[in-house]
Amino acid sequence: MKTNLVKENERVDDLELSGLKIIQNKDWFSFGVDAVLLSDIVEDCPNGKLLDLCTGNAIIPILLSKKANFGKIIGVEIQEQVAEMANRSIELNDLQDKITINCIDLKELPQDYYNKFDVVSVNPPYFKGRAGVVSDNSVKMNSRHEILCNLEDVFVATKKVLKNKGSLYMVHRANRIVDVFELARKHALEPKKIRFVSPDADSAPNLVLIKFIKGAGSELTIVKPLCVYNKDRSYSDEILDIYSKNNIDREEKRRQWVCI
Amino acid sequence: MKTNLVKENERVDDLELSGLKIIQNKDWFSFGVDAVLLSDIVEDCPNGKLLDLCTGNAIIPILLSKKANFGKIIGVEIQEQVAEMANRSIELNDLQDKITINCIDLKELPQDYYNKFDVVSVNPPYFKGRAGVVSDNSVKMNSRHEILCNLEDVFVATKKVLKNKGSLYMVHRANRIVDVFELARKHALEPKKIRFVSPDADSAPNLVLIKFIKGAGSELTIVKPLCVYNKDRSYSDEILDIYSKNNIDREEKRRQWVCI
Repeated sequence: MKTNLVKENERVDDLELSGLKIIQNKDWFSFGVDAVLLSDIVEDCPNGKLLDLCTGNAIIPILLSKKANFGKIIGVEIQEQVAEMANRSIELNDLQDKITINCIDLKELPQDYYNKFDVVSVNPPYFKGRAGVVSDNSVKMNSRHEILCNLEDVFVATKKVLKNKGSLYMVHRANRIVDVFELARKHALEPKKIRFVSPDADSAPNLVLIKFIKGAGSELTIVKPLCVYNKDRSYSDEILDIYSKNNIDREEKRRQWVCI
Repeated sequence: MKTNLVKENERVDDLELSGLKIIQNKDWFSFGVDAVLLSDIVEDCPNGKLLDLCTGNAIIPILLSKKANFGKIIGVEIQEQVAEMANRSIELNDLQDKITINCIDLKELPQDYYNKFDVVSVNPPYFKGRAGVVSDNSVKMNSRHEILCNLEDVFVATKKVLKNKGSLYMVHRANRIVDVFELARKHALEPKKIRFVSPDADSAPNLVLIKFIKGAGSELTIVKPLCVYNKDRSYSDEILDIYSKNNIDREEKRRQWVCI
């Protein structure tokens, strides 16, 4: 391993997928199940161009580098020190040919991005303004709260960069769906498929996975909810499938999502 | 029983709740589990005024006459022959003092309704225009399809008649939630609580129960999904509770909904 790429206060996590690894700062935002679930719903797009907004430590670009057959993946991150760390993870995985991380404000995307992307993915800051549990750590807070960008900024940026009929995949907190649907429609991104995610079968959903299509008509498919845990707190079969390294199973799972 | 109130081609169904009965025409729209679930989520409102839009055979007013402590319930139905049958059901149950059924187009509600109601309930036509399975029977089709009114008409009417901070309760098809949320916000009716309903634990939700508050801020609570059937196709405990005549259990269930 290229240990020279890892700085003080950072650790390298094995993603247990095709040997992929990721550098994470112990004080900043670490990826969770939501990022893994988001990467799992992104459909195949041979040689397509993907833009990952709010890319953070680049977990989505790295996971998708071995999936979905994208030709080129660009991750955009506003926080300079986070983008710098993400770039080192790309180098650690020798993915420089496929993935580029750019330190840009998504509210000021370059014009040569406009109408150029087949797919956008985003795991945006979840909390409005400074609501919710606010961290003293500003890097972490910017990753979790709508401080440097808000939900509408995400849709405005997505509308600009997606080709017509291009897809946006988003994971968000389930209780933000009213905001999500209202703002998505305002910017011509029609919700086409949603799936709620619950901790277990006895709990209310806390996350939602959504596929939007730019310029599409209104027809929504709701997929049956995904439970993360069984009653005994072990991971559900479906979560194990998603985390599994068995690529055939993963493909099958993804096909189900596409076809439902 | 006042058999003179029942016409040819009609039947009288026992609602198994405090002796309540309902007259239904065999060729028209008969109430289903959605109406029962809608009536179940309406919270107590001592001496309050309820307006039930798209009241049809008056199933919601009749069920709510023994619940929620309303002082006065008005049901509005545009189809003359359906409103006439509903009125006979009110008489059959001796509920004329509590319930009035008016044959009015909800797009033309009288001004003396404006800002007068504490609660609105509605089980609207589910299908856009003439989409979905279209019936040859025009009365039934008008009950299921947005022909005589559409979803936006329902929100426009509700906004007019509700007092500020008054509540709207709606049951709709789960795959209409994007339309529902977008139009509700447009007319100052904020979705505050939603619950999806699935046929069983292995199925996607097909219905959604929603509570809105006029003029409220945005904060949504999602309640854990309700399953209608167990795996063996028997009714789930929760559905049996809702259908149960045990009023203490019903009260407890309703309190849970209020508190979650």
